Amino acid sequence: MSYFLLDDYANMEPYLPGEQPEGKWIKLNANESALPPSPAVLKILNEAEYEGMGFYSDPHCHKLRQAIGEVYGFDEKNVFVGNGADEVLAFCMMSFFRKGMKIAFPDITYDFYRTYATTYNLDFTQFPLNDDFTINVDDYVDYDGDVILANPNNPTGIAISVSEIERIVKKNPERMVIIDEAYVDYGNESCIPLVRKYDNLLVVQTFSKSRNMAGARIGFAIANEDMITDMNKIKFAFNPFNMSSLAIEAGAAAARDVDYWQKCIHQVCDVRDAFEKDLKKLGFDVINTTTNFTFITHPHFSATYLFKELKKRHILVRHYDTPRINNYLRITIGSFDVMLKVLYAIKEIVGEGYESPDQ
Amino acid sequence: MSYFLLDDYANMEPYLPGEQPEGKWIKLNANESALPPSPAVLKILNEAEYEGMGFYSDPHCHKLRQAIGEVYGFDEKNVFVGNGADEVLAFCMMSFFRKGMKIAFPDITYDFYRTYATTYNLDFTQFPLNDDFTINVDDYVDYDGDVILANPNNPTGIAISVSEIERIVKKNPERMVIIDEAYVDYGNESCIPLVRKYDNLLVVQTFSKSRNMAGARIGFAIANEDMITDMNKIKFAFNPFNMSSLAIEAGAAAARDVDYWQKCIHQVCDVRDAFEKDLKKLGFDVINTTTNFTFITHPHFSATYLFKELKKRHILVRHYDTPRINNYLRITIGSFDVMLKVLYAIKEIVGEGYESPDQ
Repeated sequence: MSYFLLDDYANMEPYLPGEQPEGKWIKLNANESALPPSPAVLKILNEAEYEGMGFYSDPHCHKLRQAIGEVYGFDEKNVFVGNGADEVLAFCMMSFFRKGMKIAFPDITYDFYRTYATTYNLDFTQFPLNDDFTINVDDYVDYDGDVILANPNNPTGIAISVSEIERIVKKNPERMVIIDEAYVDYGNESCIPLVRKYDNLLVVQTFSKSRNMAGARIGFAIANEDMITDMNKIKFAFNPFNMSSLAIEAGAAAARDVDYWQKCIHQVCDVRDAFEKDLKKLGFDVINTTTNFTFITHPHFSATYLFKELKKRHILVRHYDTPRINNYLRITIGSFDVMLKVLYAIKEIVGEGYESPDQ
Repeated sequence: MSYFLLDDYANMEPYLPGEQPEGKWIKLNANESALPPSPAVLKILNEAEYEGMGFYSDPHCHKLRQAIGEVYGFDEKNVFVGNGADEVLAFCMMSFFRKGMKIAFPDITYDFYRTYATTYNLDFTQFPLNDDFTINVDDYVDYDGDVILANPNNPTGIAISVSEIERIVKKNPERMVIIDEAYVDYGNESCIPLVRKYDNLLVVQTFSKSRNMAGARIGFAIANEDMITDMNKIKFAFNPFNMSSLAIEAGAAAARDVDYWQKCIHQVCDVRDAFEKDLKKLGFDVINTTTNFTFITHPHFSATYLFKELKKRHILVRHYDTPRINNYLRITIGSFDVMLKVLYAIKEIVGEGYESPDQ
């Protein structure tokens, strides 16, 4: 720590990014996509962008905000964009949350909420998930502060319905509700349409999952115009030209190629369903996820053991050393071929003996 | 303003990005580069990046930090990278400055310092430049707070020497000194080597000028390891994966191609020197800049008039409606051909009559 670091950050908990090993691995620990982005992105990369790189990107990011707005039926004034959903969330926090303000989120959810809340000294409450890992919506309806929820939740992969979210939003118009829909496209309903009815709802999405563009760092929020204007003002005071021309152009092209990313989603869901079916045959309890990952546990093999055995075989999955979920593994759905390899490895580890009797 | 915006931001002054007109313009108002980045960047864009875009970028940005470190003879632990120098400055401010802390900068300098200082309620002092637009170094040596200086200064283009900066840094080791060297490569000495001697100096540079990559959003800071570690911790709590894979890869390739960007710098300086010589013949007072722009005034034509006349001819330059410099224009140095066109336009406006008698 330098002499100059503010003591405001005394409570900060270090953020641990997922393991990024060197060398050849099957990397299924960060819910990334093995599929390429829309071919329209390749065209952008190969063409106009190099020659004009000496000129600043558009600080308003009009082209990207327009493209996203069109896809969801909103004006660009309702769309904020940033370098990944994390930056969008950070600008939201920076605009609307100060030290001591109350915010609630589940005990088991995306780590970043807790990282942000401790670093910036928010007064946060973590409501425990139910025993089946579902969210107890009433906890949030009755809470006297703001709310942030990942829907579907991560790492459980379980979603709540839009009408349940509406109960939380509707109860108190002075409560801000942030819904992080990073995984919404894999078979869930988005609550973006609720933004038309409620001025206290901000919905965050990302290009890192269904658009196969985690490396390009693109995220967005849709909310009422005043909130988006506030966030843009804060962005303009913090880093006006936050997004590169490449991210703006490639993001706009990818957003508009809806057919392509819908096709990719179907592909991932098909592989996931087949993989989960096979896991069940091997005796795994599989949480009913609607995401690009699966969340599993086995009655006879500890998650720690399975994690280590997979790692020996150069397959990296996610294991959380956290109460209640430390016997679960989160496995990203890769390509059909990759998941066959993973299944083969798991069979080797748990043995064919766990094939269920009806097979 | 939404119901939710924090009243902490009541003093915020809106940031006004430079005019970005539609259509065909000669755009010389934002010190951008008409030269392309290193050909190594084109290779990056055309090759590996598309297929692997579904995977997250490296949150530690090792490759880019290593490349920059090598060029300046530092370890990557001394290098922080961000989406443009503005983001680097913002993470510096966020790590080390809170409401009410004292910071000084000139009355005439890069607008962003004031924008940041008002938004985040710093107790800032703006020392007036001398009448010849030079910085009075003693103001800062004697000041009892932190200091941020652009060197060379913008929009004046005037630099102070490294030994003058050292006087400010040396005087008080508890004072943080931030030197923003956005324009240092156009004929000035960098104070990066001072980082080896002083733990209270942070030097910021950008890829937006000499590396011809404003659109790619890449900036960096070099400072002692503890300060860089602090800034990275704050980054990890705000937006861990701040930079895209493309920015990291392209930035590293461009940083290492020193011969290329040195060649570009010489080209810009040659065009600048020729352009300034011609402007003097037309009666202009030319500030002796060491940057990729020129800062000029004319005894018989107001800057407002010249700005409007150039705009009529679809040439956009920068005019500041600010006391003391409102009769000056800042003109970015474009290509040789572009500057010939600009010179022709200026000749048309002020008339050939202002050719000085010795020609």
